[in-house]
Amino acid sequence: MAGNTFGTLFKLTTFGESHGEAIGGILEGCPPNLQLNLEAIQQEMDRRKPGQSAIVTQRKEADQVRFLSGVFEGKTTGTPIGFVIFNSNQKSGDYDHIKDSYRPSHADYVYDKKYGIRDYRGGGRSSARETACRVVAGAIAKQFLSNLKFNAFVSQVGSITLNKPYQELDLSLTETNPVRCPDPATAAEMEAHIREVRKEGDTIGGVITGVIQNVPIGLGEPVFDKLHAQLGKAMLSINAVKGFEYGSGFDGVRMKGSEHNDAYKSDGTTKTNFSGGVQGGISNGMDIYFNVAFKPVATLIQPYETIDKKGETVQTKGKGRHDPCVVPRAVPIVEAMAALVLADFELLNRTIKS
Amino acid sequence: MAGNTFGTLFKLTTFGESHGEAIGGILEGCPPNLQLNLEAIQQEMDRRKPGQSAIVTQRKEADQVRFLSGVFEGKTTGTPIGFVIFNSNQKSGDYDHIKDSYRPSHADYVYDKKYGIRDYRGGGRSSARETACRVVAGAIAKQFLSNLKFNAFVSQVGSITLNKPYQELDLSLTETNPVRCPDPATAAEMEAHIREVRKEGDTIGGVITGVIQNVPIGLGEPVFDKLHAQLGKAMLSINAVKGFEYGSGFDGVRMKGSEHNDAYKSDGTTKTNFSGGVQGGISNGMDIYFNVAFKPVATLIQPYETIDKKGETVQTKGKGRHDPCVVPRAVPIVEAMAALVLADFELLNRTIKS
Amino acid sequence: MAGNTFGTLFKLTTFGESHGEAIGGILEGCPPNLQLNLEAIQQEMDRRKPGQSAIVTQRKEADQVRFLSGVFEGKTTGTPIGFVIFNSNQKSGDYDHIKDSYRPSHADYVYDKKYGIRDYRGGGRSSARETACRVVAGAIAKQFLSNLKFNAFVSQVGSITLNKPYQELDLSLTETNPVRCPDPATAAEMEAHIREVRKEGDTIGGVITGVIQNVPIGLGEPVFDKLHAQLGKAMLSINAVKGFEYGSGFDGVRMKGSEHNDAYKSDGTTKTNFSGGVQGGISNGMDIYFNVAFKPVATLIQPYETIDKKGETVQTKGKGRHDPCVVPRAVPIVEAMAALVLADFELLNRTIKS
Amino acid sequence: MAGNTFGTLFKLTTFGESHGEAIGGILEGCPPNLQLNLEAIQQEMDRRKPGQSAIVTQRKEADQVRFLSGVFEGKTTGTPIGFVIFNSNQKSGDYDHIKDSYRPSHADYVYDKKYGIRDYRGGGRSSARETACRVVAGAIAKQFLSNLKFNAFVSQVGSITLNKPYQELDLSLTETNPVRCPDPATAAEMEAHIREVRKEGDTIGGVITGVIQNVPIGLGEPVFDKLHAQLGKAMLSINAVKGFEYGSGFDGVRMKGSEHNDAYKSDGTTKTNFSGGVQGGISNGMDIYFNVAFKPVATLIQPYETIDKKGETVQTKGKGRHDPCVVPRAVPIVEAMAALVLADFELLNRTIKS
Repeated sequence: MAGNTFGTLFKLTTFGESHGEAIGGILEGCPPNLQLNLEAIQQEMDRRKPGQSAIVTQRKEADQVRFLSGVFEGKTTGTPIGFVIFNSNQKSGDYDHIKDSYRPSHADYVYDKKYGIRDYRGGGRSSARETACRVVAGAIAKQFLSNLKFNAFVSQVGSITLNKPYQELDLSLTETNPVRCPDPATAAEMEAHIREVRKEGDTIGGVITGVIQNVPIGLGEPVFDKLHAQLGKAMLSINAVKGFEYGSGFDGVRMKGSEHNDAYKSDGTTKTNFSGGVQGGISNGMDIYFNVAFKPVATLIQPYETIDKKGETVQTKGKGRHDPCVVPRAVPIVEAMAALVLADFELLNRTIKS
Repeated sequence: MAGNTFGTLFKLTTFGESHGEAIGGILEGCPPNLQLNLEAIQQEMDRRKPGQSAIVTQRKEADQVRFLSGVFEGKTTGTPIGFVIFNSNQKSGDYDHIKDSYRPSHADYVYDKKYGIRDYRGGGRSSARETACRVVAGAIAKQFLSNLKFNAFVSQVGSITLNKPYQELDLSLTETNPVRCPDPATAAEMEAHIREVRKEGDTIGGVITGVIQNVPIGLGEPVFDKLHAQLGKAMLSINAVKGFEYGSGFDGVRMKGSEHNDAYKSDGTTKTNFSGGVQGGISNGMDIYFNVAFKPVATLIQPYETIDKKGETVQTKGKGRHDPCVVPRAVPIVEAMAALVLADFELLNRTIKS
Repeated sequence: MAGNTFGTLFKLTTFGESHGEAIGGILEGCPPNLQLNLEAIQQEMDRRKPGQSAIVTQRKEADQVRFLSGVFEGKTTGTPIGFVIFNSNQKSGDYDHIKDSYRPSHADYVYDKKYGIRDYRGGGRSSARETACRVVAGAIAKQFLSNLKFNAFVSQVGSITLNKPYQELDLSLTETNPVRCPDPATAAEMEAHIREVRKEGDTIGGVITGVIQNVPIGLGEPVFDKLHAQLGKAMLSINAVKGFEYGSGFDGVRMKGSEHNDAYKSDGTTKTNFSGGVQGGISNGMDIYFNVAFKPVATLIQPYETIDKKGETVQTKGKGRHDPCVVPRAVPIVEAMAALVLADFELLNRTIKS
Repeated sequence: MAGNTFGTLFKLTTFGESHGEAIGGILEGCPPNLQLNLEAIQQEMDRRKPGQSAIVTQRKEADQVRFLSGVFEGKTTGTPIGFVIFNSNQKSGDYDHIKDSYRPSHADYVYDKKYGIRDYRGGGRSSARETACRVVAGAIAKQFLSNLKFNAFVSQVGSITLNKPYQELDLSLTETNPVRCPDPATAAEMEAHIREVRKEGDTIGGVITGVIQNVPIGLGEPVFDKLHAQLGKAMLSINAVKGFEYGSGFDGVRMKGSEHNDAYKSDGTTKTNFSGGVQGGISNGMDIYFNVAFKPVATLIQPYETIDKKGETVQTKGKGRHDPCVVPRAVPIVEAMAALVLADFELLNRTIKS
């Protein structure tokens, strides 16, 4: 299996299955002499972890990260940062019912076909549990890029949409409600909707908006590793993501060039920002903003029909403790991946100075 | 500058500026003993090249690809395929007016800030001319993956939308009109709109839909190099792209899990395909389909105000021969990038057989 | 810090410092459905571990490897294999005397200068302890390449040389003596020499010869990743290595082409094998053989003079438990690295089949 | 075919066969705003090219490099530098006699077995002609690292050895004789020997010594990409190389630690330099020196027996214009590869500053 590494210089490689002994990772390239705030890292972990509110899964996972290398007397040494998160609360028994059958819109079937073997305890490698490792590394990336501000928030749940541009929102309110939507009224609506959906044993999709501020000019490596291309890949690599757009996005299609072009002010900033902070794949110093679409979670607590390994129809029912809507817990993951992308470009950018 | 390579094993590295002596590339990893159809490669080049119809730029570029290595007596040898396309029709004079000023929503400003130097003749490295190299490599990828079908077409221009799912379209009609929309009536509307916009010296955005058929099960390398993540990056790396979605995409957000889940038939195919042919980052054998949003081209043939290197306001006007709408010519580029993505995953997949 | 990864597809990334909490690694690309013999892996670890005989360091390290992922019901799953080895016997106190001074011919000085910070407890990241991770991964590579035979043995200690070509030796005797030299008489001489040197608190260099048998034709990726180039890099990356030669090596320089060329037999094998099993960077099916030169260990149990951080002269004396000669314990490391090189080429070779 | 790229950031990818239309490469990562001395680059090419003296091959190849991108108004722009060297003097007819047979100790046989197809005109991809591309890139690396001094010279031809340490030589004499040995008396002996060998239609091996001076402290990326490991790989990737050693090398094996350790002076330099300028894989500011062993060229102008594709014995005789001894022309290649290695480490080193 290739594809376990993200980044070129600020580089994260992860391992681990949802119900194995541990998950973990190696973060390479973090410059030495960075004073790590371990508490802040754990805080990010806590934003992602299950059980934090009534509208997310009630699984209990401590998600305690343990650093094994690369940190000495509180500072990074420049050597690879190895870390593990032991899986303390695996209830593998919850998964016996899916051992021989394939859950619809899960990865069970394709893993079996691709690898000829599958760790059927939960999602195995395909579980979103793996994203805990990304949050660890992303939290370090945020500390490395301490001048930048990474904000993500929920802007849509099902058909409930936050109809305000991010500039009109008070982003400091994001963490004040379990949905992580910075507009309290909309957040309440979203929360009610998620509760309702959960009662039905059903799930619902959502959108997360990301905003990155104080970005220096010059990050991004065209032609293939354009800032927004790498950012898009980062987001699309998160479980359940179906779409990515930045700046004017899909709406920009309807505009004419004369409306869409961002006119310069004399200081090099632009009067509008349809570009979303990126020109030709390189940051231009304006805010980077983007939307990430998440599908409804595939695990339902309802009876359903599916097939087993022999192709025969089986009746089953989702068990276990699952999220009715993934976006509230995915907010820190979006921020983490954004931070990893920019940290990598920051390091690459250092190599071109004369 | 990093970021000039796409792919891990089926790997393209490109070089070249729009107004330099030549552009070109090196394609590594193409298996040996593949009989190359050079005419088919040139045909793909011709689909992308300027001047092919009244609604695209009237620049004349022969875009003749010349293979320098890796092919012997018509077959690939397994060694890297080096190729060049000489720039025969550079009118660098067209660009003197932008030597010291920054065109809005172009990469001029960020290249200058990032590199401290800029080849101001056209877009230089940031020009979409570079995509000609991708079409060469993509055409070879298509021949390598001769069982798969790569179809892309224009599904939106400005606000004119093709309101049919791809299954109801006759995709063989795509090449019968200059817009490359497989629905003749919508195509005519789109063409008229582009002509109108061009008359105003303005430009307009569009959407390309891609469909990949006959995909084997098992392509894609989670967790970071999920099939759709790599496909999204591929698309977002194309000039002017602002968004990517696959399967149910942004619309899927509004659905409940019970609606969105794709139930299995006994043969492992699914009754619906909201997943878009990808589960957990791995192809499941169903059609892969996706949308790519393109912004309106930034170069207008209208007077506009911008700033020069000193930050002073200058009045200028787009000159040269530019596309009023980029999507018709971008169709073969979308197909090429999709083919490169899948060829790479096909090679990676070969490494896991026991 | 870059450079923690070895291999392109069969890929090992390691982390860890000698006196941190743990060392470990992630092995990617091992094909699924390989039945792992965990005992055989631990056996390789035991060959490398300290304290196994009177002529190696008397440090006690259990070197128990713990697999955290990628293995399910005894078989590889195709997902990354994460593993850790906890550092149970760190006597960091042993190193207080070097906290502020630089040991001659160690990496202390350059780490401080490069990173501006140093984990001074032992070698930190530069310690040969890291090679334990290589042995884990190499042991898996051996099982993956179960048809090939990897043999390494000590062929020189100081000036005592094993003056026989490997074909005249019984390589099964290698493990019958603590020196790991397959010729009992020479082994006894070497052992006596090492004991003598140790008594003086001094150390001595050595040579390990590697032999790989049953290699399939076609492994190696010219032009830069030639089999012997990658093998050479692998060996030179082992601590204390100063030289590498394969086939006729440095002696071949004195030969004429008419003597050195390996004439073909009708079955494609060659009558002689000065080439060392590699032609143009690709295996030709003959035995691969090579020599690896190790310098004398830098840590002496003698008084010596060196400088501290301020450049001032300090008198000190090596403490702790160190190897008087590194080659006996390095034999399994040489085999492990050779196995990693060939496993990677085996996977790469799978990608060129038509 | 993988393996066509050298370097991580200062990165060269090459293409081309000896008798194809052209060879060439793409050099990525060279920082912008470097004023390129094109004449100096061509000079390096001329040092490598055939026909420059009586003791090298009399083939005539202009070896004129043509830059296609990445350079604007004489300066690098930061974009990839594409270049080609057209093959003007291919006498493919010279090779008809080997179309169906395998030359001993050449790559003919393994290429056929590995790829199932072979460009039999000369060595094809396995020809040393490819190294011309390395010299182009290496010449740019030298200009990028203008403070460092890269010197290589011939220190052995057959059994004729230059018995002086490099410190006692006047390296400015290297280019004053066709052998490229800085000691005129030894050079004359070597030249006579090569002439003699050539008369017999035979060939002879040799050793090149490389010396790199003014190296900053801190280059190299342990644990796998140690400076000397990458340097060793670079050298071993050059055609005909059989061995590499640095610092004390294979001779160091015989020394005791107390003799071999390099004691520090108060300024951090060392009194001796058995380490060869590298500690723990990182440069320590002392001179880096190393030896590279080249086997005798395999192409003889003598009758010989070999096998054809069917395994049947054929009588043949080397034709064409070949080198009787490869080391004089390989001197600039050794320097080029060394420069590429250090340029890459210089860029990597920039990424760790806090």
